[in-house]
Amino acid sequence: MPKPEILDPQGKAVHGALPRLGFADVVDVRQGKRFEIELEGEVDEDRLAEVHRMAETLLSNPVIENFTVHVEETVS
Amino acid sequence: MPKPEILDPQGKAVHGALPRLGFADVVDVRQGKRFEIELEGEVDEDRLAEVHRMAETLLSNPVIENFTVHVEETVS
Repeated sequence: MPKPEILDPQGKAVHGALPRLGFADVVDVRQGKRFEIELEGEVDEDRLAEVHRMAETLLSNPVIENFTVHVEETVS
Repeated sequence: MPKPEILDPQGKAVHGALPRLGFADVVDVRQGKRFEIELEGEVDEDRLAEVHRMAETLLSNPVIENFTVHVEETVS
């Protein structure tokens, strides 16, 4: 997600469109990206650290964006 | 997120770049959008339904994208 101090024109545009479409009461909208990274097998601490490094170096721009990493289990 | 049957060129590009950057073992990458909608006060069922309607009509393209809505509490 864009850092709080960074302008977010896409979020602002969505926020501006909401009242016209009948949605009131929204204080703010921020738009960012979401990546789903699929790994095979167990996600241990090392692999999670690797995904963190991936998010930091490739998936986000750390100058203007924050990121969080969540693990979701899927049973195949 | 793009539906599973929809091609995701951004996700494919990221997936292709990972081995070159030293990240192995990733089965798949999908890229989508994330919106943070800030509301004031309690989020009851009606307001949650309104956010669902917002996601369906304005924030996503239901032909090619799926969406999920999560509520996160913040104490100010």
